[in-house]
Amino acid sequence: WGNVFWSMQYGSFDEVELPNLTVTEANPAHWMDYRRFASDMVAEFNRLQVEILRELSPGRDLTHNFMGRILDFDHFKLGGQIDVSTWDSYPLGFLDEQRDIFDKPHRTMFARAGDPDLQAFHHDLYRATSNGRWWVMEQQPGPVNWAPNNIAPRDGMIGLWALEAYAHGAEAVSYFRWRQAPFGQEQMHAGLLRPDRSPAEAFDEARQVAERLPHIDWPAPQAAPTALVFDYESSWAWAIQSQGELFDYFGLVFEIYRGLRRLGQSVDILSPDQAAARLDAYSIVMVPGLFACPPTLAAAMAATSARVIFGPRSASKTAGFQVPPDLPPDLPAEIMPGRVTRVETLAAGLTVPLSTSGHFHIWREFVEADVAAEIRFGTEDGFPAMIRRGNIDYLCGWPDGTCLETILSEACSEAGLRLQRLPEGVRLRRVGDTGFLVNYSDVPFEIASLGQDISITNGPEILPPSGFAVIQIRD
Amino acid sequence: WGNVFWSMQYGSFDEVELPNLTVTEANPAHWMDYRRFASDMVAEFNRLQVEILRELSPGRDLTHNFMGRILDFDHFKLGGQIDVSTWDSYPLGFLDEQRDIFDKPHRTMFARAGDPDLQAFHHDLYRATSNGRWWVMEQQPGPVNWAPNNIAPRDGMIGLWALEAYAHGAEAVSYFRWRQAPFGQEQMHAGLLRPDRSPAEAFDEARQVAERLPHIDWPAPQAAPTALVFDYESSWAWAIQSQGELFDYFGLVFEIYRGLRRLGQSVDILSPDQAAARLDAYSIVMVPGLFACPPTLAAAMAATSARVIFGPRSASKTAGFQVPPDLPPDLPAEIMPGRVTRVETLAAGLTVPLSTSGHFHIWREFVEADVAAEIRFGTEDGFPAMIRRGNIDYLCGWPDGTCLETILSEACSEAGLRLQRLPEGVRLRRVGDTGFLVNYSDVPFEIASLGQDISITNGPEILPPSGFAVIQIRD
Amino acid sequence: WGNVFWSMQYGSFDEVELPNLTVTEANPAHWMDYRRFASDMVAEFNRLQVEILRELSPGRDLTHNFMGRILDFDHFKLGGQIDVSTWDSYPLGFLDEQRDIFDKPHRTMFARAGDPDLQAFHHDLYRATSNGRWWVMEQQPGPVNWAPNNIAPRDGMIGLWALEAYAHGAEAVSYFRWRQAPFGQEQMHAGLLRPDRSPAEAFDEARQVAERLPHIDWPAPQAAPTALVFDYESSWAWAIQSQGELFDYFGLVFEIYRGLRRLGQSVDILSPDQAAARLDAYSIVMVPGLFACPPTLAAAMAATSARVIFGPRSASKTAGFQVPPDLPPDLPAEIMPGRVTRVETLAAGLTVPLSTSGHFHIWREFVEADVAAEIRFGTEDGFPAMIRRGNIDYLCGWPDGTCLETILSEACSEAGLRLQRLPEGVRLRRVGDTGFLVNYSDVPFEIASLGQDISITNGPEILPPSGFAVIQIRD
Repeated sequence: WGNVFWSMQYGSFDEVELPNLTVTEANPAHWMDYRRFASDMVAEFNRLQVEILRELSPGRDLTHNFMGRILDFDHFKLGGQIDVSTWDSYPLGFLDEQRDIFDKPHRTMFARAGDPDLQAFHHDLYRATSNGRWWVMEQQPGPVNWAPNNIAPRDGMIGLWALEAYAHGAEAVSYFRWRQAPFGQEQMHAGLLRPDRSPAEAFDEARQVAERLPHIDWPAPQAAPTALVFDYESSWAWAIQSQGELFDYFGLVFEIYRGLRRLGQSVDILSPDQAAARLDAYSIVMVPGLFACPPTLAAAMAATSARVIFGPRSASKTAGFQVPPDLPPDLPAEIMPGRVTRVETLAAGLTVPLSTSGHFHIWREFVEADVAAEIRFGTEDGFPAMIRRGNIDYLCGWPDGTCLETILSEACSEAGLRLQRLPEGVRLRRVGDTGFLVNYSDVPFEIASLGQDISITNGPEILPPSGFAVIQIRD
Repeated sequence: WGNVFWSMQYGSFDEVELPNLTVTEANPAHWMDYRRFASDMVAEFNRLQVEILRELSPGRDLTHNFMGRILDFDHFKLGGQIDVSTWDSYPLGFLDEQRDIFDKPHRTMFARAGDPDLQAFHHDLYRATSNGRWWVMEQQPGPVNWAPNNIAPRDGMIGLWALEAYAHGAEAVSYFRWRQAPFGQEQMHAGLLRPDRSPAEAFDEARQVAERLPHIDWPAPQAAPTALVFDYESSWAWAIQSQGELFDYFGLVFEIYRGLRRLGQSVDILSPDQAAARLDAYSIVMVPGLFACPPTLAAAMAATSARVIFGPRSASKTAGFQVPPDLPPDLPAEIMPGRVTRVETLAAGLTVPLSTSGHFHIWREFVEADVAAEIRFGTEDGFPAMIRRGNIDYLCGWPDGTCLETILSEACSEAGLRLQRLPEGVRLRRVGDTGFLVNYSDVPFEIASLGQDISITNGPEILPPSGFAVIQIRD
Repeated sequence: WGNVFWSMQYGSFDEVELPNLTVTEANPAHWMDYRRFASDMVAEFNRLQVEILRELSPGRDLTHNFMGRILDFDHFKLGGQIDVSTWDSYPLGFLDEQRDIFDKPHRTMFARAGDPDLQAFHHDLYRATSNGRWWVMEQQPGPVNWAPNNIAPRDGMIGLWALEAYAHGAEAVSYFRWRQAPFGQEQMHAGLLRPDRSPAEAFDEARQVAERLPHIDWPAPQAAPTALVFDYESSWAWAIQSQGELFDYFGLVFEIYRGLRRLGQSVDILSPDQAAARLDAYSIVMVPGLFACPPTLAAAMAATSARVIFGPRSASKTAGFQVPPDLPPDLPAEIMPGRVTRVETLAAGLTVPLSTSGHFHIWREFVEADVAAEIRFGTEDGFPAMIRRGNIDYLCGWPDGTCLETILSEACSEAGLRLQRLPEGVRLRRVGDTGFLVNYSDVPFEIASLGQDISITNGPEILPPSGFAVIQIRD
């Protein structure tokens, strides 16, 4: 922990207390180990229940319902103990509530639809936590009661959210709740039935979904071409030491996820351990903001032919929350792209212009590239902005939308992936040759504009707002 | 209370605790009953004092000084125990402090005058709480010390505030305070005298008011043509369950009060019980946001010939804080205008356009009109926005200023009331044929513009900023 | 204390408690005496240590390292006990953190340089606290870890900050820290060495400073022509009783300091006691917002020939935190310029236009000028804005930048001081005929533009961004 700093050495383990009630901040390594401990306790308590239930309910699936953007414990650890991960999806409530990642114009534009990527992100995340098996346990059925504002969904969205979940591989979608109870704390939370037991809007939309499901030819699961590493420890690390008021790990990962989706890419989300085990299955692997790089993942990176885009801030610490002795990133010498000599965080409105299009903002690194590395592009003030060594691209800052599109579209082209720039609010989830289109926007979308090698197998030619279509892609 | 929801059943009354320190929110019915209990305790403690004072001071008036926009207990209950309600009127402090209902441009425009309706609203409210007898106990005499910023009033406003109170029926106006004490917590709060005992600005203005009062022919009290129901329980209900961050009961009622005043209307404020007893005395009765409709009021609504504008959100709960079994509004079948099947709250900037002019914002209801009801106008997305059954208009959302003016001007026209659109900052309080004009604005107002049937009985032909005039209306 | 107000009289001294946990606010005199007591306890504890160290380390300098804008105790009292005042100077961290005095455009413009006056202000302050001897104990060496955002300094600034400190008379500048420790709470705080012990940017800049220092002909210390009174008690007073949300004592003093520096003036900061003792050494003495005027200072003001600009809000209280019996300012009759009959605080956006250029904002006084006083200029609504009696100018409000420039340039002209309007970000510190120029801006500055009587003795003709030059002034 480096407790010699500020003279905080311990005489014995008994002196170690919780990292709270300190005069000023606690040692970040102390905080980190507390977060690990707390997360392990959640997993241990879950395992206790799992053992009881496995004995008493042999052969039954065990589930847990996770939530959206809850980072308090390692969901991969808990998810690995059960059979089916499930989560509670409230697109409109989340959009209005998560004002740090959704600005006011965006919240207004998608107020009745939800963010076009947030549900998909969690679908892809929870598909990973129990190794592929997952549900939506609670699907928003109308206006809820707990968001700052509780608006009604646009017609069709209640059904579209369910269809989108199936497109991402859900085994089941369950609405919360059957009937809007007329009493108690959630009396203003919609259900499939109204308080008087008459059918609510969600009832019809859910029935239509149920009727449509058998008519869709669902493809067998398979890995996406692109992977994105998501690490709960990293979210703790950068909450403990954000170093800048705008640095948010979830926000960084989510922006990269959205950047991939805007280009028509489908994504598998992986834990660092999963990534280490399966790196070769992917054409592109994104590793943003990874606190410390496990040796297994570093070894896999050295061995794979996948294009790995690493950084910003990745492997900038040892597992013990120290600056690596030879400066970040903390990687084996044979794949080390360079050394980060200095970092800075940028207040809102401050940016670093790049020699390509776009800027860095929020986070920026000053990097000395290794002689074995190629500088892909730089900053206008003369520092490397992205460097490459072998199959590893190291990104030296937080890219804005323009920079991100440049990086990702080049990576896709190099990897031979189909680039499919989509309008705001239209998204494509692809499993093999099958594509699923969703339209979160207010504007109809002409499916034929995707290319001549597309045919529609379920759904209309013009995808209306709230529309869902299944296509065949022959590329 | 519906405690079966979330499995919170009680085994005995002893298990019922305060609705605080709960894991998440308490049952709204629990909160509501606590608010009722707390309010009753205030009233009971007051009654205890009243009984002592009545015995020891027979024949003397008992008073209490209420405040502006204090909603913690039911002022009608306490006011009914005493002889004279009084209140503390600080127009500039309130304007600067109440930023949720007064936006920045409005606060700037009226910084030295105060809001043109807030004092009148409380005058009309406290005229009701002790059945007509009321005073201003503390009138702001200059800059005070407790608001975020403490500006000096425009010349003449200190006097105008007092005259306006008399125009609304005050028996007395008392300034706080005689002398600005040079020590202690309120040493920066102005008085009629400065700390050195020399006369302050307020001294002269108060003397001028005292000299003018005998020259005005004060009319006998009589009911206004328009009533507005104000209910303390409703303010508790929607604080407990706002359902949207912008929904504020006081703000809703106050906007309707202001809308009426902009059209030159004079208003009596009534408790629900008072409204039930006196509905027939009025041409128009506004009942916005009434939590639960007492049976006596519902019966009066069914029997009266007054135009009742009911809603939004009125009678949306039972008295026990549940959604009514047959959906809101919770009214007897014979006057039921329709059923609210769904509601939504709208974030700032989101609106629902109406087929007439204007929009709903903040709060919007999806209503199925009863076959016996007439749809007065709708939303652009095809739902009823205002429906009528007999003498009851049901309003299905929070009207913006444009919509409100349309509704109220039509209601006035139907009721044969004189429509007198007034410039921003000029207001008219009318008692029978006598009218009182106040000018909160920075611009002179030509009184003759009110019509040929107006004559000035006290005051100038051109009402200057801070001016007060008495007129005779022969319509 | 005036405890009779609100009936808070004490029966004995034992009843006096801390001014916290009160039902509403405590008596301001109570708070003030608590602040004095707390400050005295800090000084007393320091004296205890000083006595031990003096005995054990005879002949050694004793120091303490103060901070930027820390007002909790009277630094003059503590500074007088030691030999050398030192402080910790973090220009970029302070700029980003102190958002109440630095608005967003200013923070963006100087993000990589720091505010052009904040360091100088503290240099001048801590030069005063131990009677001339002072150091920078911690100089920011690069990005730090504790500000909301932690940006890297512009090239050259790390050195410029040190040179500027020497220009203000520092005996030493010490960087925090030698090496960026790779562990513990401050692992992201730069040092002269990086975590891997290689030289960081600061290393080279510090070495260049060390090499340049011997080549500069440092002048002997001498008093500046202009003094500014800074009083810790006043900062407590106006924190206790701001009377307006924008009134901040430090902000007021700092704006006047900046106004002087924009006109090329050099400033000595003085405690009220120091000012009383040395008033005659100065041409201009600024005394803004001085809570209570000590009799010694009042006597010195009556006797000096220096131009004293007094106010706003100066001597508005007695030392016992009461409004003076004959109204403020609380000055002896023979120098009394008038009486403040009323004050007001102005919300953001509200201003009082002046008959000269500019406005008052934030704070404004209504003053009756004494017959012996001259009204220098007034407000557009007809009140005195600045009045003069003998050598004392009394300023009746918080001046905006335009008004401040008018007042200060006139005062400099009257006093025969050289007026040197400087571009934004360029500053001049003058000691006798020697001038030190610093360039905080992004734009080069042509030194010859200062006049024909200037010659450069150390540095370039065109001062680049982050540049430092020494000049000789022959006026």
